[in-house]
Amino acid sequence: MQQNQQILIDSLPRGKLQASHYRLESGPILEPSVGEVLVKTMAFAITAGTRAGLQGSASYAGAPKSGVVMNGTGVGEVVASNSADISVGTFVMAPTGWQQYSIHAAKNVTPIPSEHDPIHYLGPLGVNGLTAYFGLLDVGQPKAGETVLVSAAAGSVGHMVGQMAKIKDTRVVGVCGSEAKGLVLTQNLGFDASLNYHDNGFRDALKAATPDGVDVYFDNTGGMILGSALFRLNIGGRIACCGVVSQYDTDRPEPGPKGIPGLLINKRLTMRGFLLFDYADRYAEARKNIHAWLQSGQLKSLTDEVEGLEAAPDAFVDLLGGGNIGTRVVRV
Amino acid sequence: MQQNQQILIDSLPRGKLQASHYRLESGPILEPSVGEVLVKTMAFAITAGTRAGLQGSASYAGAPKSGVVMNGTGVGEVVASNSADISVGTFVMAPTGWQQYSIHAAKNVTPIPSEHDPIHYLGPLGVNGLTAYFGLLDVGQPKAGETVLVSAAAGSVGHMVGQMAKIKDTRVVGVCGSEAKGLVLTQNLGFDASLNYHDNGFRDALKAATPDGVDVYFDNTGGMILGSALFRLNIGGRIACCGVVSQYDTDRPEPGPKGIPGLLINKRLTMRGFLLFDYADRYAEARKNIHAWLQSGQLKSLTDEVEGLEAAPDAFVDLLGGGNIGTRVVRV
Repeated sequence: MQQNQQILIDSLPRGKLQASHYRLESGPILEPSVGEVLVKTMAFAITAGTRAGLQGSASYAGAPKSGVVMNGTGVGEVVASNSADISVGTFVMAPTGWQQYSIHAAKNVTPIPSEHDPIHYLGPLGVNGLTAYFGLLDVGQPKAGETVLVSAAAGSVGHMVGQMAKIKDTRVVGVCGSEAKGLVLTQNLGFDASLNYHDNGFRDALKAATPDGVDVYFDNTGGMILGSALFRLNIGGRIACCGVVSQYDTDRPEPGPKGIPGLLINKRLTMRGFLLFDYADRYAEARKNIHAWLQSGQLKSLTDEVEGLEAAPDAFVDLLGGGNIGTRVVRV
Repeated sequence: MQQNQQILIDSLPRGKLQASHYRLESGPILEPSVGEVLVKTMAFAITAGTRAGLQGSASYAGAPKSGVVMNGTGVGEVVASNSADISVGTFVMAPTGWQQYSIHAAKNVTPIPSEHDPIHYLGPLGVNGLTAYFGLLDVGQPKAGETVLVSAAAGSVGHMVGQMAKIKDTRVVGVCGSEAKGLVLTQNLGFDASLNYHDNGFRDALKAATPDGVDVYFDNTGGMILGSALFRLNIGGRIACCGVVSQYDTDRPEPGPKGIPGLLINKRLTMRGFLLFDYADRYAEARKNIHAWLQSGQLKSLTDEVEGLEAAPDAFVDLLGGGNIGTRVVRV
C-alpha cells in the first residue's frame, strides 16, 4: 500500500533552525470526506515567513507546536474528489504543507486556470507575487519618478517588488546579501542599483545609490536595514512592513531601530504592516495584471528549485542563511 | 532706556537639562523694519518638544546652537508696527521665544480675534490644541465605540486629545506619571480610566483598562509606553506619532520597541508621524470647532501658570520631570 511521505516538526528551535528540527515520516493516504478533495503535491514553496511561526512570540499563524506537518503553500493535482465543485485532474494551489498528499475542504483550494503555469502559483501568481503587488502598490503607493528601496531584494517577494516598481516608472534600489545576487538584480531584473548589506560601507553606499532620497521602502527584513532606510526616507515617505527576516532565525529578537518614533515624526513617515489575506477580494484583479506582465516579459519570475521532499529541511536552513535567489521551490 | 529681558541658551545640555544651561540677558528693544511688527510678550508656553531641538540629533527645527534666545510660542500685543496689515494694539500669537520683546514679519504672526482669550492661543486654539485635533482626528481616525489610548495624557497636548476623543464617543484611557494627574483626568476631564506608568503593575493595569483592546494610540512618549501599547492594539489599529518625550531629556536615546516592525505586520497596524504645520490650511476649521467645544464646556483647557520670565528655566526642567498638569504657561 502506498504511503504519504511527510516532514514533521520534530522539535521547536532554540536559537538557529537546523535540519534536525525536522523528521521524515510515513502515514496512510486518507480518503476525502464529503466536500473534500485529496491533493497530490507537485511542488511547494519555502518562505522565510514560516520561520516566524516556529518562534515563541505571537504570530498571525498562531502558537508554534511540534509533531505536526510543516506548513507551506503548494501546488498539485486533485487525485480524489468528494466535492461537486472540483473534479479529479484539476490543478490547485493549497496549503499542502511539506508532504506528498493532503486533504482539503474544496473551498480552501484555489483551482489554477489551464492557461497558467501551476509553478507560477508558488511565485508571481501565488502568495509571494500577490504580497509584492499589494504591499508595493496599496501600502507603498509609489508614484512615477520616485525612488523605491526594497530589502531582501533577491528573495521571493523582493525580486518581484523591484520589477513591479520599475513597471511603475520609479528608480529602484535593492538591498541583498551578496554581490552575485546584486548583479542578478541589476543585470537581469532591471533594478537601477543594488547594495550588499554585509559591506562595511553599506550606509554610505545606500546614500550614494539614493541621491534623491527614498520615497517608498518595502521592508522584508526589519533590523539594521530598516534603521538605515529611516535616515534616507524623504518627508512623507512610506514604509510597507512585509517581513522581519533579520529577526526570524533566533529566539532573541533585537530591539527596534533608534529612529522610531522620532524620525517618523520629523519626516512625517507612515509605517504600515500588512498581511496578504486582507486583500482576498482583489486577488483576481492582481492576478490579471501580473499574468499580463509575465506574458509581456516585464516581470520575470526567478525560481530556485530543489528536488525531493527530504531536501526541504536543508533547503529551509540554507534559505534562512540567504542561499536562495528568487522563490525557493521544492519539487516533490 | 528700557531693555529687552531675554533668556538665552547658555550651553547645550549633555545628559539631563538643567536651569544652568540658560542665562538671563538684557538687550536693546529694536525698531520694526518695513513689513515688521514689535510684539510685547504677555505669556509663552513651555513644551517638551522644544527639548528635542537641544539634542545633537536631527530635528525638524534644525541643528541646535547656544547663544540664542530660547524658542517658544507666545502671545502678546503689537506695540509698534511698520506694516499696514497689523495695527498697534492687536493681540497676536507669534514665535516670541523666551523674551519680553520680539520683532516679526507681519506675515509670521497670527492675529487673535477679540472674542478669543489670548491665553487660549497657547493652549486649545494654539499649537497644542491644533496638534491634538489633527493628530487625533486626521491621523488617528477614531470611530465611535472604539478605544483611544493617549500617553502624557495630563500634558499640554494629551489632556486635549482625551477630551476630543470623548467628544467623538470613544472609550478613553490616559497614561500619565502620577496618581494625582490620573485623578484629574478621570474626575475633571471625563477620561474613562487613567494609568500611572511608574506603577509596577502597569502592563496588567493597561490590559485591564482596555478590555476591548486599543484602536487608536496617540503617542506623546515613545519608549516603554509605546512598546506596551503595541501589545494592546487591535488589528487595523492606528498609532499617531506626536512626540517622544521619554527620549528628549538625554543624549543617549534608547532603541525602539521590540515589536517593531513585527507586531505592525501581525496586526496590520499603521504608525504615522505628523507635524502640525502640514495642516496650516485647515487651522481655521479646527479653531472653529475647538472654540465651539470650549464654549459648550465639552473641552476644558488646563493651564499651569508660572510667573515671570526668569522662572522659565526651572519651569522647563520641572516639566521634563513631569511636574506640569495641562499647558505650562509663563506670564511675562
